[in-house]
Amino acid sequence: MKKTENINTIINLCKTRGFIFAGSDIYDGLANTWDYGPLGVELKNKIKQLWWKEFVLENHNSVGIDGGILMNRNVWVASGHVSGFSDPLMDCRGCKSRLRADKLIEEKFPDVSADGWDNQRLLDYVNQHDIKCPVCGKRDWTDIRQFNLMFETYRGVTKDNSAQIFLRPETAQSEYINFINVQRAMRLKIPFGIGQIGKAFRNEITPGNFIFRTIEFEQMEHQLFCKDEDALREYQNYKQKTLAFYTQTLGISPENLRFRDHEKLVFYAKAACDAEYLFPFGWGEINGTHHRGIHDLSSHQKLSGKSMEYFDPITNQKFIPTVIESSHGVDRIFLALLCDAYHIDGDRTVLKLKPSLAPYTVCVLPLQKKDLSETAEKIFRNLQKHFSVSYDESGSIGKRYFRQDEIGTPFCVTIDYDTLKDGTVTVRERDTTEQTRIKIADLPKYITDKQ
Amino acid sequence: MKKTENINTIINLCKTRGFIFAGSDIYDGLANTWDYGPLGVELKNKIKQLWWKEFVLENHNSVGIDGGILMNRNVWVASGHVSGFSDPLMDCRGCKSRLRADKLIEEKFPDVSADGWDNQRLLDYVNQHDIKCPVCGKRDWTDIRQFNLMFETYRGVTKDNSAQIFLRPETAQSEYINFINVQRAMRLKIPFGIGQIGKAFRNEITPGNFIFRTIEFEQMEHQLFCKDEDALREYQNYKQKTLAFYTQTLGISPENLRFRDHEKLVFYAKAACDAEYLFPFGWGEINGTHHRGIHDLSSHQKLSGKSMEYFDPITNQKFIPTVIESSHGVDRIFLALLCDAYHIDGDRTVLKLKPSLAPYTVCVLPLQKKDLSETAEKIFRNLQKHFSVSYDESGSIGKRYFRQDEIGTPFCVTIDYDTLKDGTVTVRERDTTEQTRIKIADLPKYITDKQ
Repeated sequence: MKKTENINTIINLCKTRGFIFAGSDIYDGLANTWDYGPLGVELKNKIKQLWWKEFVLENHNSVGIDGGILMNRNVWVASGHVSGFSDPLMDCRGCKSRLRADKLIEEKFPDVSADGWDNQRLLDYVNQHDIKCPVCGKRDWTDIRQFNLMFETYRGVTKDNSAQIFLRPETAQSEYINFINVQRAMRLKIPFGIGQIGKAFRNEITPGNFIFRTIEFEQMEHQLFCKDEDALREYQNYKQKTLAFYTQTLGISPENLRFRDHEKLVFYAKAACDAEYLFPFGWGEINGTHHRGIHDLSSHQKLSGKSMEYFDPITNQKFIPTVIESSHGVDRIFLALLCDAYHIDGDRTVLKLKPSLAPYTVCVLPLQKKDLSETAEKIFRNLQKHFSVSYDESGSIGKRYFRQDEIGTPFCVTIDYDTLKDGTVTVRERDTTEQTRIKIADLPKYITDKQ
Repeated sequence: MKKTENINTIINLCKTRGFIFAGSDIYDGLANTWDYGPLGVELKNKIKQLWWKEFVLENHNSVGIDGGILMNRNVWVASGHVSGFSDPLMDCRGCKSRLRADKLIEEKFPDVSADGWDNQRLLDYVNQHDIKCPVCGKRDWTDIRQFNLMFETYRGVTKDNSAQIFLRPETAQSEYINFINVQRAMRLKIPFGIGQIGKAFRNEITPGNFIFRTIEFEQMEHQLFCKDEDALREYQNYKQKTLAFYTQTLGISPENLRFRDHEKLVFYAKAACDAEYLFPFGWGEINGTHHRGIHDLSSHQKLSGKSMEYFDPITNQKFIPTVIESSHGVDRIFLALLCDAYHIDGDRTVLKLKPSLAPYTVCVLPLQKKDLSETAEKIFRNLQKHFSVSYDESGSIGKRYFRQDEIGTPFCVTIDYDTLKDGTVTVRERDTTEQTRIKIADLPKYITDKQ
């Protein structure tokens, strides 16, 4: 079996088989937006449901929320996003191109990391190393300005500062600002967690690599609120929980995953790491586990004037809990799953997704429409009570099997003339192509056991 | 049993029990945004999952998508939203208040419907009837201007027209612009449907009634693409499907539901109606079923230059299909469900949600922590494999039952000292308060059968 080395193979499969289409395709797109198609939305929903089950529902000290994308501007003042969430941009006076100074340096000198450099240092480096505009070849740069990555809009009919709001650039702040409301309403005791799945938006200048970096994306985030002395242990727990979710629940190959500790920690953090997947374009972050100290809750307490302290009924002490964050990119996990599952096996393209993740668990195929459709339809209806089921009655049976292999359907159930006589069907398995004759009544159990 | 007449009762329950909190609460909110809390997100997810099952998964000529909130500006030019999706606003020169002219008239003269009046007619009416500013009492109005309800933002680093984009004010356009991509990738034959669940945004000037009218809301929309001659029959089908979903699947009382045909139809439509629920503040729309003709696909074909025609392999004809839309407001259905389920029964507040919708299906309660926690925890873990389960070990057993009644949990499982001896527990039912002694091993089946 061969694996793909090329992201374009995946993009093409996604478009032709209905996983993902270019956003606003008929209007020649909107740069780096993507729409999930019929198969994509099923796979994405399954990832989200499995995460929700594992991170939110299966702990009785964990609950979920679903906060707004639009929030009061002060949320982003307190979080530091209004002042600090920006890219260093400069314009070429020759051709008016606007470019990210740090990326310009890193593309010219791949060994240099310009991450975190201030504007002066970036500009000095560009000048000293004579870096020219990649568009027109001139070296006539403006000063560097910081460009905020949050999409801004205005609430109401005026466009002054008081009406300015932002599309959230991350979901986490919802969990922080609702910390006290959630703790009180649910009478939760520390340690407890709040999880959320939702969209976030960043006005990225240089997005790319398909759905890896987009201006609109979906996050699954879990914030654990705990005592400071337990935080590093919980941090390790969440790394393990993440690894188990990726390898056991989602079935991603462990050899394509690694943890990478952050080299520089922000002042309030005691630990931070990324989980990375080996994409065709290299290692890329799909998750972050972060010890965030008391930074977020303290900042909100300071700006809002509302107490973020937890009262411990055992010690009778009040304190701001420490936060361990586990943040997952849904779209990136989706892409990792497709890359991991993609295999070429002779003349078959096989998407070896775990049966619990495949957009369809079963496809029902009448050998031909004539005489067999009615029975096939009945079997389809019955299997739908238990599984995600597709139905395909056009083309040769071999072609239909190949189509199901390509979208990852683990089981094909074929109805033929013997079915009418003896009530049996053929179950054909995706990975082995083995075929087994099964009684119709035994199908649900057979498939459930094999899942 | 008494039902509530007051929306504030529902709002208060939502806040104190963790269904819904005011958005950005610690920063004194952002007008008319709301965050779903731990119980709210579970109820909302169940509504969405049931709709998805019924409208998308259980038809083999129906598929889902998940399109972007940010789309190419031309999508909204073609749909008419850029030019026509606006409210008539005028300013009071006295106090600078900005008000909707049509609402001003309707509030002063409740029998008048100013919906659809042009600016001149609105202004004439205000002047002729001497309508004064409700804030300062003067009559010194500016002219009326149309204010677009779409939130605008800018993609990239410039703020010119070419970079202007909008937050989608409805999800439907995603289904229209992806019509050909979806049809081809999935090899669908007409009639087929595309469903979607997602957020939409409207910069409403006069929102209100809790989560009934908000600036950020969630829609569940299904567009059926069919032959024109079948469209009115399909329209009736979707009305019936909607009624079945509300009454049978969600369990809303039929006497609190009605259909209301639109009085005026837009030029391209052959039929349109709203489904309304009787909220404490009156009848309010929770759904729309719309015959939309070929208007949407034609408009996109015209502006994009891309064919939206379907090729019929039986007749060898090409045509633009007619669309029947079934549009549902998730937040409004959520509110209808709470209002419908809310009952006062003596000193109990009972949320009579269908068991399949309740945030928790079961609550596990050890009579006391001492000696019983371990057994209770085991039962909790086991029930979690089958149901949404909560756990409560603090307070008197009566108080704990009442808490579960108030959040709609249909079954309480109580562990006492007899449990340790004979392996039985008490199952207490929400609606009847009846208690039954059951063997632990029989719990999953007992609860499943009663659901």
